[in-house]
Amino acid sequence: MKKRGFFITFEGVDGTGKTTHAERLAADLTAAGHETLLLREPGGTSIGEQIRQILLTREHQTMTGISELFLFAAARSQLVREVIRPALERGVYVICDRFIDSTVAYQGYGRGLDVDFVRRVNEAAVGETKPDLTIWIDIDLEALAKRLGKRTKNNQSDRLDLEPMAFRGKVRAGYQEIQASEPERVFRVVSMPDKNDTYEQIIQCVRREIL
Amino acid sequence: MKKRGFFITFEGVDGTGKTTHAERLAADLTAAGHETLLLREPGGTSIGEQIRQILLTREHQTMTGISELFLFAAARSQLVREVIRPALERGVYVICDRFIDSTVAYQGYGRGLDVDFVRRVNEAAVGETKPDLTIWIDIDLEALAKRLGKRTKNNQSDRLDLEPMAFRGKVRAGYQEIQASEPERVFRVVSMPDKNDTYEQIIQCVRREIL
Repeated sequence: MKKRGFFITFEGVDGTGKTTHAERLAADLTAAGHETLLLREPGGTSIGEQIRQILLTREHQTMTGISELFLFAAARSQLVREVIRPALERGVYVICDRFIDSTVAYQGYGRGLDVDFVRRVNEAAVGETKPDLTIWIDIDLEALAKRLGKRTKNNQSDRLDLEPMAFRGKVRAGYQEIQASEPERVFRVVSMPDKNDTYEQIIQCVRREIL
Repeated sequence: MKKRGFFITFEGVDGTGKTTHAERLAADLTAAGHETLLLREPGGTSIGEQIRQILLTREHQTMTGISELFLFAAARSQLVREVIRPALERGVYVICDRFIDSTVAYQGYGRGLDVDFVRRVNEAAVGETKPDLTIWIDIDLEALAKRLGKRTKNNQSDRLDLEPMAFRGKVRAGYQEIQASEPERVFRVVSMPDKNDTYEQIIQCVRREIL
């Protein structure tokens, strides 16, 4: 029986610095001598990357909420079976930038799809492969609006970045519900003006759990 | 209130001549003066055609049954909302080569996914837009093996054509279940050696329903 790895996911509305912190954590875990795998959703497999292109294309403003749900779930099913599960079985620390909670928060709470159905779709996609720890980076929506304003000016926005602030408020409320129902798994980190202060909360939590 | 059209789907295992018969029916309905729209699944929209490419690529033998289910459902959700529903509202006769029953028969009965979950995924994808009439072309599996042998020699096969005959047996059993549970909607046509004899059964059924 091989030693099992540890599965950490990063969650939150866009623009909280999630990706940067996930990269920094992966680098720190690697430096500490752990085999670490950093993944992003959607993507990470041949099929998943093709699905990612469909999801992120600006032209696809006609996409239904249900299609979006199913496309994310299809990409996730591939990622779990081709990459995450084999890595965890080898004892690797897997870090994933977005996972099941994004679907509940965005497609369920954000777009108003039936939350129970969204959870069932997630369960079908991932089976028993649930995160051991989820870092939810929470942010004040006013501070977020300022950060995103900058990003759009730099032309780095894609289809999902075009969502209005009211939508982000619903998504954030979704994350609040998820965290309230699973406080053991989901750790809330408050995004601070200095990103080092944000990261300090993250690495302390991870140290408590696995180091 | 506009006159509502009529929605006909064609179903069956691959190689029964479904596509040829759907085309012939579309031509006959058009010749009889009805505005008719012939569609195929997966596809028919910009997003759906991209999904079709993912589903039909031979390299994707690693695709999970769950991914396949969600990709078909995502394409279907787009087709219903962008094409089928607006056409039916304009009074058009819509003919679709494969629809919800394919998913129940292939992903449910064929690949062994939970049939109730597959039905819920279908319902989420199509809403109230169900077929008025479904033509299920049934075929003796021995006769089918001979036809498909010919097709493969001619190099016309794709990923879905590579399924072994035992799988087709399960799919066919799925169609039998569907027809038994909804005999009013699903009309079973037996594929005959002369395709004109097969078509005769189809056009007679359609005439009874809509002409």
